[in-house]
Amino acid sequence: MPALMPVPAHMEARTGELLIDPSFSVAITGHKDARLQRAVELFLDHLRRQTGITAVDLRITDSSKAALTISCENASKDIPELGEDESYKLDVSSSGAKLNASTTLGVMRGLQTFLQLVHTGPSGFVVPAVSIDDKPRFAWRGLLVDVGRHYIPIEVLKRNLDGMAAVKLNVFHWHISDYQGFRIESEKFPKLQEMGSDGLFYTQDEVRDFIAYARDRGIRIVPEFDMPGHSTSWFVGYPELASGPGPYQIERTWGVLNPAMDPTKEYTYKFLDGFIGEMAKLFPDRFFHIGGDEVNGKEWDANPKIQEFKRAHGMKDNADLQAYFNKRVEQIVSKHGKTMVGWDEILHPDLPKSAVIQSWRGQESLAQAAKQGLRGLLSSGYYLDLMWPTSRHYAVDPMSDAAANLSPEEQKAVLGGEACMWGEYVVGENIDSRIWPRAAAIAERLWSPQEVRDVNSMYQRMEEISQKLDWLGLTHNSGYVPMLRRIVGNVDPSALKALVDVVEPVKEYNREDLASTPPTSTMPLNRLIDAARPESLPARHFSELVDALVAGNLKPGMEPQLRAVLEKWRENHTDLQPFFEQSFLIKEVDSLSQNLSALGAAGLAALEYLDRGEPAPAAWVSQQLSAIDQIKKPQAQVLLVVAPSVQKLIEASAGQTAALPAK
Amino acid sequence: MPALMPVPAHMEARTGELLIDPSFSVAITGHKDARLQRAVELFLDHLRRQTGITAVDLRITDSSKAALTISCENASKDIPELGEDESYKLDVSSSGAKLNASTTLGVMRGLQTFLQLVHTGPSGFVVPAVSIDDKPRFAWRGLLVDVGRHYIPIEVLKRNLDGMAAVKLNVFHWHISDYQGFRIESEKFPKLQEMGSDGLFYTQDEVRDFIAYARDRGIRIVPEFDMPGHSTSWFVGYPELASGPGPYQIERTWGVLNPAMDPTKEYTYKFLDGFIGEMAKLFPDRFFHIGGDEVNGKEWDANPKIQEFKRAHGMKDNADLQAYFNKRVEQIVSKHGKTMVGWDEILHPDLPKSAVIQSWRGQESLAQAAKQGLRGLLSSGYYLDLMWPTSRHYAVDPMSDAAANLSPEEQKAVLGGEACMWGEYVVGENIDSRIWPRAAAIAERLWSPQEVRDVNSMYQRMEEISQKLDWLGLTHNSGYVPMLRRIVGNVDPSALKALVDVVEPVKEYNREDLASTPPTSTMPLNRLIDAARPESLPARHFSELVDALVAGNLKPGMEPQLRAVLEKWRENHTDLQPFFEQSFLIKEVDSLSQNLSALGAAGLAALEYLDRGEPAPAAWVSQQLSAIDQIKKPQAQVLLVVAPSVQKLIEASAGQTAALPAK
Repeated sequence: MPALMPVPAHMEARTGELLIDPSFSVAITGHKDARLQRAVELFLDHLRRQTGITAVDLRITDSSKAALTISCENASKDIPELGEDESYKLDVSSSGAKLNASTTLGVMRGLQTFLQLVHTGPSGFVVPAVSIDDKPRFAWRGLLVDVGRHYIPIEVLKRNLDGMAAVKLNVFHWHISDYQGFRIESEKFPKLQEMGSDGLFYTQDEVRDFIAYARDRGIRIVPEFDMPGHSTSWFVGYPELASGPGPYQIERTWGVLNPAMDPTKEYTYKFLDGFIGEMAKLFPDRFFHIGGDEVNGKEWDANPKIQEFKRAHGMKDNADLQAYFNKRVEQIVSKHGKTMVGWDEILHPDLPKSAVIQSWRGQESLAQAAKQGLRGLLSSGYYLDLMWPTSRHYAVDPMSDAAANLSPEEQKAVLGGEACMWGEYVVGENIDSRIWPRAAAIAERLWSPQEVRDVNSMYQRMEEISQKLDWLGLTHNSGYVPMLRRIVGNVDPSALKALVDVVEPVKEYNREDLASTPPTSTMPLNRLIDAARPESLPARHFSELVDALVAGNLKPGMEPQLRAVLEKWRENHTDLQPFFEQSFLIKEVDSLSQNLSALGAAGLAALEYLDRGEPAPAAWVSQQLSAIDQIKKPQAQVLLVVAPSVQKLIEASAGQTAALPAK
Repeated sequence: MPALMPVPAHMEARTGELLIDPSFSVAITGHKDARLQRAVELFLDHLRRQTGITAVDLRITDSSKAALTISCENASKDIPELGEDESYKLDVSSSGAKLNASTTLGVMRGLQTFLQLVHTGPSGFVVPAVSIDDKPRFAWRGLLVDVGRHYIPIEVLKRNLDGMAAVKLNVFHWHISDYQGFRIESEKFPKLQEMGSDGLFYTQDEVRDFIAYARDRGIRIVPEFDMPGHSTSWFVGYPELASGPGPYQIERTWGVLNPAMDPTKEYTYKFLDGFIGEMAKLFPDRFFHIGGDEVNGKEWDANPKIQEFKRAHGMKDNADLQAYFNKRVEQIVSKHGKTMVGWDEILHPDLPKSAVIQSWRGQESLAQAAKQGLRGLLSSGYYLDLMWPTSRHYAVDPMSDAAANLSPEEQKAVLGGEACMWGEYVVGENIDSRIWPRAAAIAERLWSPQEVRDVNSMYQRMEEISQKLDWLGLTHNSGYVPMLRRIVGNVDPSALKALVDVVEPVKEYNREDLASTPPTSTMPLNRLIDAARPESLPARHFSELVDALVAGNLKPGMEPQLRAVLEKWRENHTDLQPFFEQSFLIKEVDSLSQNLSALGAAGLAALEYLDRGEPAPAAWVSQQLSAIDQIKKPQAQVLLVVAPSVQKLIEASAGQTAALPAK
C-alpha cells in the first residue's frame, strides 16, 4: 500500500488493484459545475505528470464504463468557507473506482487521496483496492507564508498551493506586510507599495488570479495586514500613520522594532477604513487578519500626545491603548463584512466574541479564548522557520495541554491550526525546502484522527509523499543542488552534497545569536545554512543503523551500509579540498568538513573494535568523546547532526552498551 | 577565465577582476528606452539568481560610479529585424566595466557575455578583466521547436527563449502545425484548433505575450504553418481544404503521410488568404514560413479532378503542381506584407527571388538557391532529434561543402542556420535535455568566427555553460531525475542514474526501426530512452581516461578514477536488482544493466592484466571482444556508449596497443 498523508479517518484494504493506463477515464455523475470540472482536469493533469502518460490521454467521459466515477451531491460555496463539508468516500476495486462526496471540496480531497494511491507496480501504474471513508478533524488547516520580510515570487506561492492541496491543507494565510515590506498594490494608497516594497509587490491582478488558483484547489486565502506594530513599511509613504516623528525607511533588520501606528489619531482610522475597505473587496474570504502582535510601545511612550490621550481616556497601560485600537479596527473590519483574526495579544475582555485568536504563544491562549467564547487557531509549535525536526511539530496537538481540559462545547472553539513560514531567511530559491515535507506532517495532525501519532510511520510515509510532491514543481528535494553548485563555483557539488546531507541549520533563533554582525534583509541567502534542509533524513537513517547495531538488532546488509557511509565521510574532506581555494562561499565550511571526516574515521575505528570484540582503549574513547563534544557545536551556523550517533558507536566500542558479537 | 559560448570575435584577457557584490549597480548612458531598461532589469535578475544576492540589491543607478556603464547609441527596431547590428564592446577592469553598443540588441548580447564571465572566486563573485569586441558571423541563428507533434507548454518554451538569449541565438522558429496537431488559436477559423489540437493549443493572448517575451530578449519569432503537406490537423475541422475525400482525424503516427491540401481549388487560396492574413497580423516578424516539405503526392494522384487540373495546365508532375501552389501562396504571403520561407522542396525556377530556402537536405540546396539569387538557411546537420553527439553538429558549417565554392557575393545569401527540435519524442518534461546543451554549440558555430573549431575546447566550455543554463530554469541537467524515480517506482533512483548516465538513445530514426509496434503520438514518453540524455558526457570523460591509459599518458589519479568507475559499474546491477520485481517500467532495462556490470568486470580484469604487465590470454580476449560486440547492440532502444572504451582496454590488455608500464 503506498503512503497516504494525512492518514484517512477510516480505511480498509481490499484485494486487487486498478490499472491506470492511457485509456483511464473519469465520469462525473450527479452535480456538475465548472469548478468541479476544473478540479478533475487538474487531477488528470497531475496524474499525467506522475505517470508520464501524454497530455492527449486520460479523459473526462460520459461513459458509464469510466474507470473512476465521481458522484458529487452539491456545489461547494462559490467562495470557500470555514466549515464546509470536506468528507468523501473512495472505493477502489480492480474493476473501477467510485468517489462520492457531498460537495466539490470533498471531491477535491478524495482526488488527492487517489493520486497518493497511484504507484508503479510490476504490471503498470496501479491503485490498490481500498475502501476509504474520510473527513477532517479540524476545519481550519493552514499554512502562513510571510512575504513581508522577503518577497516570494507568485509562481513559488502557486506551487506551494499545489503542495497544500496535495496534503489537504485548506487555508493559505498571506502575511503580506511587515516592517520590511508592503507587498500588495493598493489603488487607494499607492505609496504603500511604491515606497514600502523596493518594487517587490503583488499587483491586484496577480492577487485575484492567485485567489482563483487557490479556490480551484479548495483553499481559502486569508490576508494579514499586521497592525499597529510590524508596520514600518506603511510609514515610508504615509508617515502620518505613525506614532513617531518620521521620516521612515524600509527596515532591513529583524526583531521587534519600535514603529507603530498612532492609535489616537482619527486619521489612522480613516486611512484604515479606506484601506481595509479596498482589501475587503479584493479578498473574498470571510476572515481578515489584522496581526496585532509584538507592539513594544516605545513610540507610544515617546509621544506626548499619545500619553495625553491615554490619560484622558483613563487607559492604564499600552495594552489598554492597543485594545482600544483593536476595537476600532474590529468595527472597520466588521463594517466591511469581515470577521477579525489576530494574534494572542488582541485577546482582551473588550474584544467582540466573533474574533478569532491565532496563538503563537501556546494552547493556553486558545483555552483562555475558548473560555471567553472566542474561537482560536494554534500556531505555537508549528513554526517551520525554527528548523525543528518533523517529529516535534507532529507531537503538537491543538487539543493538548491547556486545551485538553476544555469542555466539549469549548473545544469546538478550537478551529485548527496553521504551520507558519516566517520569512527572515527564505527566498524563492529555498522556501520550499523549509515548508516541505514538514508541513505535510502538520497537515496530518490537523486532518487525521487524534490517535494517529506513530512517529516512525509518519516519517516513512512522509518520505514517500515528499517525493510525490516533486511532481508539483516543488523544489524542496532538488533546489539545493544548484545552490551547492554555486557555493563550490559552478562545478560538480557531490562532495559538498555528502556534507550538507548530514547537517542542519542551527535551531530556533540561534542564527541571530551566532552571527558576528546582525543579519539583515539584504544579506544574500547563498550559504551552506541556506541550502541545508531543516531536518536531515540521511542522519535519521544513519542513527537507525547505529541504534540497530548498538541494540544488537543488525539485519543483513546493515553493517556494510554503515561502514560504507563512514568511509565516504572519512574521505569526503579530501574530495572537498580543491574547492576551498577556489570559492569564497565554501571557506566557512572547512572545519565542518574536517569534522565530518573525523567522525567517519572515529566511527570506523569504533566499528573495528566492535568487530574484533575487544573494548576500545579508555584513553582513545575519552579523546574521541571530547572531540565529539567540540564537533557538536555549530560551525558555519550549521549542526553536524550525525555526531550523536557516532558518539553512540564510540560508547558502544568502549563496552558501555551492547555491542557486536565477536566474529 | 570562465567559459564563454559562443566565443567572441575578439577577446583579450587583462589583469585583475571586478567584484560583484550587493552594491553592484548599472548606469545607462546615451540612448535609453523601455526595452533597454527591461533588458538591464532582466540582466540584474539573472545576476541575482546566479549569485544568490537578494532581490533588493543590484540596481540601475544614475551614478557615474556605477560598476557597469552601458552606452547605447540607438534603439533597435521595435520589431526585431534580420540583420540588425548586434555588435558590442565590453571592457572590464578591476575598477569597473563598460559596455558599448550601437543598438539595444548589441547591449543584450554584451550583457549575456558579462553573465557568462561572472564566477565564484576566492574573495567573492568576480568578472575577470577582459576586453571584448564582438559581433555575429551570421545574422540568422535559430532554433526550431516543433509543437505540432507534441504540444509543449508555453512556460517550457519561455525558458528555452532564455536559454537561446544566453547563447545569442536570435530566431525562434515555431513549427506550430503538423499532421498531429494544429496548435494556435485562429479566430477566423476556430475549428482549426477546436478540432485539430486535442485541446492543446496556444491562445492568441499567449502568442502575443510570448512574442513580447522574445522581443525583450532580442529574439525574433518566425511561425511556420506547414503546407500543402503535413497538414492533416487542418482537415479535421476543414476537410474541404484537403485533396482526399475525408473525413480526417488527427494523425497519431509518424512519418510522411498522404493528406495534402488541394492546390487546384480556389477555396484553398481563399481560406489561406484569410488565415495567413490573420496570422500575419499576429506575428510581427517580416518572415513567414510555409513549410512546403515532404508532399508524397498520393492524395493528388488519387484525385481525378486534380489530375485533370494538372493536364489542363500542362504540369508534368506533382513538383510542378506544388510550384503552382507555392507561387499562389507566396502571392498571399507577400500581399500580407511578409517574406516567404520554405524548405528545400519549394526551390523552383518560378519561385520569387525574395523567398528564403531552409535546407534540411544540405549545403547543396543553399548553393543552388544562392546561385539563383535566393537566400538560404542551413538546418541539415543541426537536427537535435537525431541524438547526435555535439561534435558532429559542431563540425557542420553553413559555408562548407557545396556552399564553400560560392562567390563572395553569393555567400551573402547564406543567412545562417537553425537547430531543429522535431517533436516525435519530446514533451515538456524532456525537451530541454534534447535541446541543451547541444544547441549552445550550434549557436557558437553560427555566431563565432569560422576558425573557432577546437572540439575539446568546445566540450569543456559547453559543460560549464550547461550548468549556468540551469539558473534559467532549464531542466536539461535535472529533469531526468524525477523521470528515473518514476521508472524505479518513487524511490531513490541512484543505481538507475549510474546506468542512464552512460547510455544514449539510439540514433537517427532507429527508434522507429527498432520498435515492435509503430510508435504513436499518444505513447507515454516515460521510458529509459526518454530520460537518457542524447550525449553521455560521463562516457566521454571515461573514454578520455581510457585513451590516456592506452596512449601511456596517465596522470596521477587517473587510474584510480578509472578503477572506481569500473567497480561501480560491476556492482551496479546488484544495486538495481530489487527494482526489477517492483516496476514494469524498469523491466526492459534488465539485460542492459547486466551488460554494464559485465563491462565493469571485463574492464577491471583488463586493468589487472595491464597492471601486472602480462598480456591477457588470447581466449579471454576473444571471448570478451565478442561479448562486447553483443553489448554494443541497442537494448531497450538505448546504447551503452562506454562499450567501445572498454573494448579499447581489453585490446590494450592483449598487448595490441601501448599499455601501462609494469609496476
